Amino acid sequence: MSDELQGWERRDKPPTLYRRFSFERYAQTRAFLDALSVLCDEFKRHPQNISFGTTYVNVTLEPADDKVFASQDETFAARISALAEQGK
Amino acid sequence: MSDELQGWERRDKPPTLYRRFSFERYAQTRAFLDALSVLCDEFKRHPQNISFGTTYVNVTLEPADDKVFASQDETFAARISALAEQGK
Repeated sequence: MSDELQGWERRDKPPTLYRRFSFERYAQTRAFLDALSVLCDEFKRHPQNISFGTTYVNVTLEPADDKVFASQDETFAARISALAEQGK
Repeated sequence: MSDELQGWERRDKPPTLYRRFSFERYAQTRAFLDALSVLCDEFKRHPQNISFGTTYVNVTLEPADDKVFASQDETFAARISALAEQGK
């Protein structure tokens, strides 16, 4: 697994990448979600699922081609991780 | 169950109210999520969990008092349902 996927958990059948992001306050969670929304517009793609409460966001990615994870997926994952770091 | 809770599923242990909202396009999903965020600010409370993909949003509410659902919870649920109707 590349450095870009640090912190992400790879799951199979179907292939997904999963990561949980935790925050101290709702304002941080909200800022991360808003930034993630903008990032999705930039990449013209969306996580398969985003599940969040007041202080956490679970993100599940599927491969852009629906079959195998490639470098574009790793870049997307890394950019999401970077957003979470910015908000802390 | 009151009319306000039409479409919501009540679950026990712990008590939650759950409803799935489906949309035809991501833009509608996004609009609902944004409106829901504003509603949360107005009510100064947040669903226990919001889980969404491009065309659906699953909302899980917990009682405001953490124990028993009361009229304020039903009002919150009804207002969420109304947001989904607006976006269609």
